Amino acid sequence: MQPTEKTRVKRGPKRATYDTEAIYAILDEAFICHIGGTIEGAPVVQPNLHWRIGNKLYIHGSVKNGLIRSILQSGQTCITVSLMDGLVMAKSAFHHSVNYRSVMVFGKPVIVEDPSKKIAVLDALLEKCMKGRSKEARAANDIELKATTVIEIAIDEASAKIRTGGPIDDPEDEALPIWAGVLPCETRWGDAITYP
Amino acid sequence: MQPTEKTRVKRGPKRATYDTEAIYAILDEAFICHIGGTIEGAPVVQPNLHWRIGNKLYIHGSVKNGLIRSILQSGQTCITVSLMDGLVMAKSAFHHSVNYRSVMVFGKPVIVEDPSKKIAVLDALLEKCMKGRSKEARAANDIELKATTVIEIAIDEASAKIRTGGPIDDPEDEALPIWAGVLPCETRWGDAITYP
Repeated sequence: MQPTEKTRVKRGPKRATYDTEAIYAILDEAFICHIGGTIEGAPVVQPNLHWRIGNKLYIHGSVKNGLIRSILQSGQTCITVSLMDGLVMAKSAFHHSVNYRSVMVFGKPVIVEDPSKKIAVLDALLEKCMKGRSKEARAANDIELKATTVIEIAIDEASAKIRTGGPIDDPEDEALPIWAGVLPCETRWGDAITYP
Repeated sequence: MQPTEKTRVKRGPKRATYDTEAIYAILDEAFICHIGGTIEGAPVVQPNLHWRIGNKLYIHGSVKNGLIRSILQSGQTCITVSLMDGLVMAKSAFHHSVNYRSVMVFGKPVIVEDPSKKIAVLDALLEKCMKGRSKEARAANDIELKATTVIEIAIDEASAKIRTGGPIDDPEDEALPIWAGVLPCETRWGDAITYP
């Protein structure tokens, strides 16, 4: 997609991408997003789950959630998703860095009102968590559906930033006898635990 | 610490804690935070590194970073840190959940101006990444120090939310022949990779 005034990355533009597939891949791999808005004029950032169907990003929450109410009222939000891949240890303190992949989506949050669409969208969240789960779980009843607000945001205005690889030191530091490298990290899924 | 109007958790208050040590533990385990502010009236959430010394939270960035400039100008930010521990699979679609630990810190960002304090604070970030690193790495020179803004926020107004354990289904669903449990996840560190 095309960068806009909001999404054009000013700091570290070489790490920026506006490639739709790259943006989708980061959104799809991550479960936790951070939703930005304001409450009574003050910035508020809340973690939430997010998921994607086509070029739409979804979040959900209680109808009583103050931040969700606030972003609906203001008609704007920024949803940011970040995956950390490693700490980058340079020879110089200044050039230490992080390998990461992040996406910022700016857009107008809209409530998914249509009940059948709302069910399909919530099913997609279950499927993201566990394939086949939307067919297995006891479906939401009317009261449960009404207690949940599902929000759709078109992924029209978004950017990604990606850093990979090793440290980049200044040429004059390269010969210093200091270890340099990457401490990789990843989100690892463990064996499922059955309850009760 | 005492909850305030901003930090008192309204949704899911049973998962909330204002215990200082619990808040510090989450901040210390996580590397990535999400900084909230506004730019030209629109919410913006950016990922960044954060670290802590005593009751002060620190972030840093380029002196040209628009969000950092904006939160300094407005005198307010919300910094949120989230760790995901697992997906919670209930028998009912509605009671699916996430095991997580998150912290929201509200406060006034202040620039660390004093050069020796700034060096000590940046050293603490290196130490968080790798013990002993601040003694090994080539120290920042004056130009590098000036290119970095270090921001301090007192951790006076903060809350944590923690969910642990298995799914909590409605009593009438408990006998349903549907698997229920937790898909645990964690951030795992891999073996260090040496560059070049």
